[in-house]
Amino acid sequence: MKSTFTRVGIIGASGYTGAELVRLIDSHPQAKVTLATASGERAGMSIGELFPSLRDVSDIVCEAYDVERIANECDFVFVALPHGKAMEYVPDLLKAGVKICDLGADFRLRDAAVFEEWYKHSHSAVDYLEQAVYGLPEWNREQIAKANLVANPGCYPTSAILPLAPLLAADLIDAENIIVDSASGTSGAGRSSFSLGFHFSEVIGDYKAYNVGGHRHTPEIEQGLSDAIGKSTFPPIIFTPHLLPIARGILSTSYARLKKDVSKEEVYAVISQKYAAEPFVRVLKPGELPQVKHVAGSNFCDIGTVVNSRSGKLIAIGAIDNLLKGASGQAVQNMNIMCDFDETEGLQQAPLFP
Amino acid sequence: MKSTFTRVGIIGASGYTGAELVRLIDSHPQAKVTLATASGERAGMSIGELFPSLRDVSDIVCEAYDVERIANECDFVFVALPHGKAMEYVPDLLKAGVKICDLGADFRLRDAAVFEEWYKHSHSAVDYLEQAVYGLPEWNREQIAKANLVANPGCYPTSAILPLAPLLAADLIDAENIIVDSASGTSGAGRSSFSLGFHFSEVIGDYKAYNVGGHRHTPEIEQGLSDAIGKSTFPPIIFTPHLLPIARGILSTSYARLKKDVSKEEVYAVISQKYAAEPFVRVLKPGELPQVKHVAGSNFCDIGTVVNSRSGKLIAIGAIDNLLKGASGQAVQNMNIMCDFDETEGLQQAPLFP
Amino acid sequence: MKSTFTRVGIIGASGYTGAELVRLIDSHPQAKVTLATASGERAGMSIGELFPSLRDVSDIVCEAYDVERIANECDFVFVALPHGKAMEYVPDLLKAGVKICDLGADFRLRDAAVFEEWYKHSHSAVDYLEQAVYGLPEWNREQIAKANLVANPGCYPTSAILPLAPLLAADLIDAENIIVDSASGTSGAGRSSFSLGFHFSEVIGDYKAYNVGGHRHTPEIEQGLSDAIGKSTFPPIIFTPHLLPIARGILSTSYARLKKDVSKEEVYAVISQKYAAEPFVRVLKPGELPQVKHVAGSNFCDIGTVVNSRSGKLIAIGAIDNLLKGASGQAVQNMNIMCDFDETEGLQQAPLFP
Amino acid sequence: MKSTFTRVGIIGASGYTGAELVRLIDSHPQAKVTLATASGERAGMSIGELFPSLRDVSDIVCEAYDVERIANECDFVFVALPHGKAMEYVPDLLKAGVKICDLGADFRLRDAAVFEEWYKHSHSAVDYLEQAVYGLPEWNREQIAKANLVANPGCYPTSAILPLAPLLAADLIDAENIIVDSASGTSGAGRSSFSLGFHFSEVIGDYKAYNVGGHRHTPEIEQGLSDAIGKSTFPPIIFTPHLLPIARGILSTSYARLKKDVSKEEVYAVISQKYAAEPFVRVLKPGELPQVKHVAGSNFCDIGTVVNSRSGKLIAIGAIDNLLKGASGQAVQNMNIMCDFDETEGLQQAPLFP
Repeated sequence: MKSTFTRVGIIGASGYTGAELVRLIDSHPQAKVTLATASGERAGMSIGELFPSLRDVSDIVCEAYDVERIANECDFVFVALPHGKAMEYVPDLLKAGVKICDLGADFRLRDAAVFEEWYKHSHSAVDYLEQAVYGLPEWNREQIAKANLVANPGCYPTSAILPLAPLLAADLIDAENIIVDSASGTSGAGRSSFSLGFHFSEVIGDYKAYNVGGHRHTPEIEQGLSDAIGKSTFPPIIFTPHLLPIARGILSTSYARLKKDVSKEEVYAVISQKYAAEPFVRVLKPGELPQVKHVAGSNFCDIGTVVNSRSGKLIAIGAIDNLLKGASGQAVQNMNIMCDFDETEGLQQAPLFP
Repeated sequence: MKSTFTRVGIIGASGYTGAELVRLIDSHPQAKVTLATASGERAGMSIGELFPSLRDVSDIVCEAYDVERIANECDFVFVALPHGKAMEYVPDLLKAGVKICDLGADFRLRDAAVFEEWYKHSHSAVDYLEQAVYGLPEWNREQIAKANLVANPGCYPTSAILPLAPLLAADLIDAENIIVDSASGTSGAGRSSFSLGFHFSEVIGDYKAYNVGGHRHTPEIEQGLSDAIGKSTFPPIIFTPHLLPIARGILSTSYARLKKDVSKEEVYAVISQKYAAEPFVRVLKPGELPQVKHVAGSNFCDIGTVVNSRSGKLIAIGAIDNLLKGASGQAVQNMNIMCDFDETEGLQQAPLFP
Repeated sequence: MKSTFTRVGIIGASGYTGAELVRLIDSHPQAKVTLATASGERAGMSIGELFPSLRDVSDIVCEAYDVERIANECDFVFVALPHGKAMEYVPDLLKAGVKICDLGADFRLRDAAVFEEWYKHSHSAVDYLEQAVYGLPEWNREQIAKANLVANPGCYPTSAILPLAPLLAADLIDAENIIVDSASGTSGAGRSSFSLGFHFSEVIGDYKAYNVGGHRHTPEIEQGLSDAIGKSTFPPIIFTPHLLPIARGILSTSYARLKKDVSKEEVYAVISQKYAAEPFVRVLKPGELPQVKHVAGSNFCDIGTVVNSRSGKLIAIGAIDNLLKGASGQAVQNMNIMCDFDETEGLQQAPLFP
Repeated sequence: MKSTFTRVGIIGASGYTGAELVRLIDSHPQAKVTLATASGERAGMSIGELFPSLRDVSDIVCEAYDVERIANECDFVFVALPHGKAMEYVPDLLKAGVKICDLGADFRLRDAAVFEEWYKHSHSAVDYLEQAVYGLPEWNREQIAKANLVANPGCYPTSAILPLAPLLAADLIDAENIIVDSASGTSGAGRSSFSLGFHFSEVIGDYKAYNVGGHRHTPEIEQGLSDAIGKSTFPPIIFTPHLLPIARGILSTSYARLKKDVSKEEVYAVISQKYAAEPFVRVLKPGELPQVKHVAGSNFCDIGTVVNSRSGKLIAIGAIDNLLKGASGQAVQNMNIMCDFDETEGLQQAPLFP
């Protein structure tokens, strides 16, 4: 007898994105986590032991990875593993008939050569790249609905592509010389990142840029922007991530040359019309600007823009919760589309403020 | 025709507790905010203007207070005002047949003289004190169910009474010489507290005690503990609040003399049995201790205890989110009981971690 | 008989920059604060009452402003007032023979029309603009030494000009299309900024851009950069400030087009040679990047650069403590130069880490 | 030829306390760091590589430990190592004629059995315990001046003993049933503590108690308080440390029963008279309370008291910077006394606020 709900597996449930998936699906009326995996000593531990915040919320116990059990016990699988791992698991899971949303980078870049250049890792599942759909629902909803494998976008790319893409599509800004200056909270680096760089004593009171010019989300942003203008390549952008002394949230401030002499109202109209029907994009009126704290805890992406006629430039700002619209929230949104659920199920929590 | 949902009014919706009520009731299947009030220039503003985090979540517009409209348009009212204000509004609202949960202090203390001593404010609604029920569901559920006026407990008292009361009721600890040492995030002081004491530059990196020995929650804690032992008075406690550089959360570390030579397992058994059926109290096993961050964003109260046989003392620690179990969450819990809804409706959000 | 030390007055001692001046001069062997002013109810209060951190450090009592007393009792005066105030006081003080370092904006911009355009305030001391020297010691040391009136640079301009100016002077980068993306701690807004925007509950966990395209430091950065290339004007830059949830520190990430195909070592060589003898500029080797926390509590400006040959751009990053090299520290440095003291007196504190 | 300055060695210079020693001695006119050690891969690294904040401040390079070199090249040695290590090094160093201030716990407790009970580590240098002087200058200055081996107090004990000891000595409070409730910033745990418990994502927004009833500073506080009343033992106290989301600072709130009916002015008089001549203790007037941020960056201990006549209890609060008065600052103070320097040399920095 078929289950009355979708049986969900989470591969890599011991990290922040895995725990967020458990939390979100806990409130989902049509899906239920039936299996979760963790590696090493965390296999055998319950979610409540790994995350005491989830005591009494979920009683799922993490197990070691076992493809056969997953194939038998899950209809849908989220893969929340470091890059290079999903490519090992995805082919077998797909063959077993499981639908997959991969939260990692393995299937985001269509061109394996680009992946290998930026990730310094050879790609072992190149044949699957073609069927993978880039899971940005606001731009690729129809393909996502038909996909068996969705590559969930990176956190920084989501925050940069959503504001810039409608402006590129409307030919309002120049594709050349785009700069994306971003800042992220520490949870984006994951829970296992026990280096000095994430030690509380060192991060509190600090702010710094890192991986300047070399961050792996650079080609992903370029690919996402190229899609908006229907091209296969995009001029090199500069992407500069910074580390914020907060746990959650990304704000990306992007700069582009205006191709026309437009007013702030016209810019607002283009973006707000594009996203008018979107449940998770809030386009702010001219004069208003996004703040990380206004989206934290929710699946919203807030977008604000400024026309700087003095320099002929446009500044577009996007804010998301990196663990929700930037990871697990968008992943559940993709599951909802892939499984033909209401797109907002499990994602109706308003931001937690203050 | 009677409404199919309970029509909820929020008096004082422009503060943090008011906004939390809007957010929580937004996900409540049987209640709907139909009216919200704010004073001064905030009357006329929408919740989304006051709290941009709630843009597109609620479109309620705050109005000036009007008792007739409230009587006509609301079945249930939350009062979220500074002390001294609810006592002005409550009598008329009760006469109009509206059920009330007051989040302020006006109806918490049964003895008007004690109120006047600690709050330096004369009480203008003394006749209503008797019918007011102290809204701690874990101890007063039956009376709450029958009440028309519930006084929602203070944040600090909730965090201290829930751990200590079962131990007093079981005669495990001495009522004399109890010390409650607490620390709270800044949101407990409200949104309008624009003094130097809440300026970001001054609070970040700081920690301090305040109102030592004189905080108004002192007699409320004593009253709550006296109820647990069925007495009308309680020996003076010491209550020391501290200000934490966090937005949300309270942790109260309480000290009491053990009356018997008990093991940590026995202490655990007493508390966990008392709260076994409670949906919002999590009693931690011996060896585990609560953390503010494990409850933030939820209506949970986490309780941990340590038996210090060396000194013959017991340490009982309670952690809550001051805006949820310490204010608006507990208020919604009370509404659920008063209106015969499932007690967890609108309150099912797991803690937001990290 | 002439005093054996320089008698220093601080006009506006009740703000953060004023208190920092008191603290720094307290350790200065040749200068002593002999007079401090504050307005309103703060006149009559001691520094230790205004800033309990300075109890037992300084016993100076703030007085109301009195130009005659200042003329009689001070050799050197720091003016730490909101813009528009210094222009009222400076003429009389100069006539009385007092040397002045103004920490505000009134005398920074050489062109009164530019001041009036950006500050929306008419300039009442236009005749004094010509003699005012822009107090960036690394570029204007000789004029500062001869000046009676020094305009201490703004915090953001200091953090942006110091990294960019040597590259412009060496003709390595294009003056067109420069973008300065900055982030500052909250102390930059001063101590009296009691708005919701600086409420601890709202700033912790947040990050946002503000005054995008319209911040008053924009023309000051342009003027500073024009000096580096010996021109009287500069192409419009874009300057975007952000607010960080930290008390102290600014990091500015600037973007410019490279005019030549240079290596990171060549860029490093140009900047490090320019600042080789500077006591307060630390130029980081290629591969190293500045962090706010590595300069906080000191007068250092740390500079790092990245050559992004993929896009033909240069990224230059500067980090300072906004209250020291960005305000009071640089002001003391200017005093040292103007009074022919060792330039590092009073400024030898290493950064406080962590 | 004898050196004109005291040659200082720092054993364990790669931790926070080691780096603070380098920073403080950098401004000391009579002492100079001539040798620093670090273990493992950090041997061979400069202080500026280990702590980029100290680039250009100190050029000392850490070396592996070599007792002969230390004996030859140092007059005074600070030992900043985890417990159990100093006891290995101290005997040889003393034999070589070097004076020592040990920042660890090995020589703080006079009774080796107590050490072994709480530290679960056998003591290999029991014979040296007798000559070790507990380095709390305000109470043991004369013995420190004559000592060759000083055990620098722990951070929590310093913050608790300084407020309580004068009250015990004056017989104002009862030695029975003292409770010390403390909160510390994360730097107290050191720089190498890369566990989940110090991960930025988990600590920000959190507050928790830890090691309740079992923290190793418990017997040290008891020993310090017993000294104040001239006894060899002390009734068991309860000591509860909490972890604060700040980098620096400790606030200890202690509770004791008043033995007499005294006024707040009398309590103030007792403490302020005791510390009247102390350069690093600031006793706050009745009505004022210490704050961590008012001492951070300085060697001050701020003390405030509240008489709670309602309960017959006294609350005494002490605030220090755990890395300064709680570690390296107090260690330099001890060196100054041992070497007959002015006691404030190297320690004159005012608190850094905000």
